Amino acid sequence: MLVAGIMTGTSLDAIDVAVCDIQHKGDRHAISLVAFSTHPYADETIAMIRAAVSEQATMEALSDIPFALARDYAAALSELVTSHAIEAVAIHGQTLWHNPPVSTWQAASGPALSALINLPVISNFRDADVALGGQGAPLVPIFDAATLANDHDVVALNIGGMANITILPAHAEHYAIRAFDTGPGNVWIDAASRITFGMSYDSNGATARAGVVMKPFFEEMTRMPYFAAEPPKSTGREMFSEAEARRLITRFAHPSAPLEDVVTTMTELTAWSIADHIRRYAPTTASIVAAGGGVRNTYLMERLAHHCAEAGLNLTLSEYPHAQAKEAMAFAYLGWLTLEDLPGNLPSVTGAQRSAVLGTIARA
Amino acid sequence: MLVAGIMTGTSLDAIDVAVCDIQHKGDRHAISLVAFSTHPYADETIAMIRAAVSEQATMEALSDIPFALARDYAAALSELVTSHAIEAVAIHGQTLWHNPPVSTWQAASGPALSALINLPVISNFRDADVALGGQGAPLVPIFDAATLANDHDVVALNIGGMANITILPAHAEHYAIRAFDTGPGNVWIDAASRITFGMSYDSNGATARAGVVMKPFFEEMTRMPYFAAEPPKSTGREMFSEAEARRLITRFAHPSAPLEDVVTTMTELTAWSIADHIRRYAPTTASIVAAGGGVRNTYLMERLAHHCAEAGLNLTLSEYPHAQAKEAMAFAYLGWLTLEDLPGNLPSVTGAQRSAVLGTIARA
Repeated sequence: MLVAGIMTGTSLDAIDVAVCDIQHKGDRHAISLVAFSTHPYADETIAMIRAAVSEQATMEALSDIPFALARDYAAALSELVTSHAIEAVAIHGQTLWHNPPVSTWQAASGPALSALINLPVISNFRDADVALGGQGAPLVPIFDAATLANDHDVVALNIGGMANITILPAHAEHYAIRAFDTGPGNVWIDAASRITFGMSYDSNGATARAGVVMKPFFEEMTRMPYFAAEPPKSTGREMFSEAEARRLITRFAHPSAPLEDVVTTMTELTAWSIADHIRRYAPTTASIVAAGGGVRNTYLMERLAHHCAEAGLNLTLSEYPHAQAKEAMAFAYLGWLTLEDLPGNLPSVTGAQRSAVLGTIARA
Repeated sequence: MLVAGIMTGTSLDAIDVAVCDIQHKGDRHAISLVAFSTHPYADETIAMIRAAVSEQATMEALSDIPFALARDYAAALSELVTSHAIEAVAIHGQTLWHNPPVSTWQAASGPALSALINLPVISNFRDADVALGGQGAPLVPIFDAATLANDHDVVALNIGGMANITILPAHAEHYAIRAFDTGPGNVWIDAASRITFGMSYDSNGATARAGVVMKPFFEEMTRMPYFAAEPPKSTGREMFSEAEARRLITRFAHPSAPLEDVVTTMTELTAWSIADHIRRYAPTTASIVAAGGGVRNTYLMERLAHHCAEAGLNLTLSEYPHAQAKEAMAFAYLGWLTLEDLPGNLPSVTGAQRSAVLGTIARA
């Protein structure tokens, strides 16, 4: 069965579409990537979402965002649905707020998209888990468990807007899997790039590579309570907002230091926070398989390898074969699980009271 | 099949739950009411919704509302699901914004409710129609067509927060049915009651009955462009807000007139606007079948009968047998249509490009 998964992350850089062939195979599931492409948002959609996450949006804009996203997703799918026999589309939606275990908010109208493309659409994957007392995140671990090697201890790392890890002990059952957000992924590196040089991100980490870490600023940030908190935990742009980055930079960055150093220090914080969580919660890890937009930041990856070695970890750091496509593939798989009436959350990971069939299916 | 329908209207007065037995019967559908009850919202939920519709809510509150409603709905269902073999629940959700044909926003998380009650939940009924260029409203007409007499010309009237009519010519096919909002239902009568006497509504219309109509104020309001606009049309609290009522009262009500007269004049506007639309668009109507909370306002019903006679209409005005339950019953039916993969919107009514299977099904 061909299912398209659409991921739109907090970094707002692109609409990622992964078309996957998903089949039952004995008591396992076989998932292969058939096509992957990225598409732009409409400028107006981005403007509305930026306003929303910074608490500046009108009710009218908040009402419009799910429909604007449906149109953007329909445009992103238009070629793929003619070239492939896609049978359903699973959408993550755009996170506008994430306040577990009280609530979570992924905007995007499944019924509207279904009406526009004449295909079933599965959406709102996080709500049921949150209603069951879970964090509603992360949801990729069940995909990691289905797709990664299970003969040695593996950490699946994703560096999107936020960074998260799935800890997969060798031969682990679902209940033994742990996963959580380690903190910021690209979000504060992007914020620092915007604040200092007006760039939307630090391409290949070139700016960070040109600077040096401001130790007191770095150490101040490592004391943020989120890093010390015990998992399960998840976070988002509420805690790691651009406003908060700006406040920290204004307060703690040395005013006469080169601007590059701000980006370098944010990159260091990101690499350190990932490595430190692996040191604390998965010290026997033999390999890290990294995915998400952050793997393109080669300087960030070097610093991550450095911090892992520094922490005494003996492991290999490799890139997931379809690093850019991974989250979109995971949502294709989660959508397929929903269509098959199979649960998608792992209570050991999210903290939910029980596993649940996630999301909701529109067939307009 | 037993399906529960849950309606929560703009008046925020109660959570209405109708349990209906719905069956195929030849090429018609048989719908009977098995149980009906009303339940309170949590006070905090009402406060958050009030803040939202007056554009004062935080993003955190907007994120929390769909989950708070899911909990309120689960509480409203708790006795009914043990006493009846309910197989699915259809929820309208709480309209926070309605801006067709661009967007519409009915808050309430179907997946969260499904997780809490362990039953399939159908939600977000208006989105697909809006995405197809429709008004997303009204959706009750297909229920009116399924349940009301079709041997003479009938108008089905519902007086909730807004008032709407379905025009059902004798022996009409779906494409010949028209329906639209005539304007305010209880919303401005309630607003006037709050503004003048601090009462949340005018019980039985007693306050309005004690006053007299302020002619210039009444006539000013009849000139609002919505009343003259051609159907299909729909409206909501954006146009008929409490702030707008307050502005009109401040500007046009005679400052030394008794406060009752403000409520009387708003009641008169409501009755006149319903009758005037029937005069213009359904002059051959033989009977009006009225439902919704507004039928309890006996003074409003008397003024409606008066304005119909005044307009030269020769008709009977009666109350729908389950007047309080009707909208909740309609959503039970709409949910059943979705489960049966049958369309729920009437393009002749909403203006959508095509009929569509409405809503989205969660089975957590």
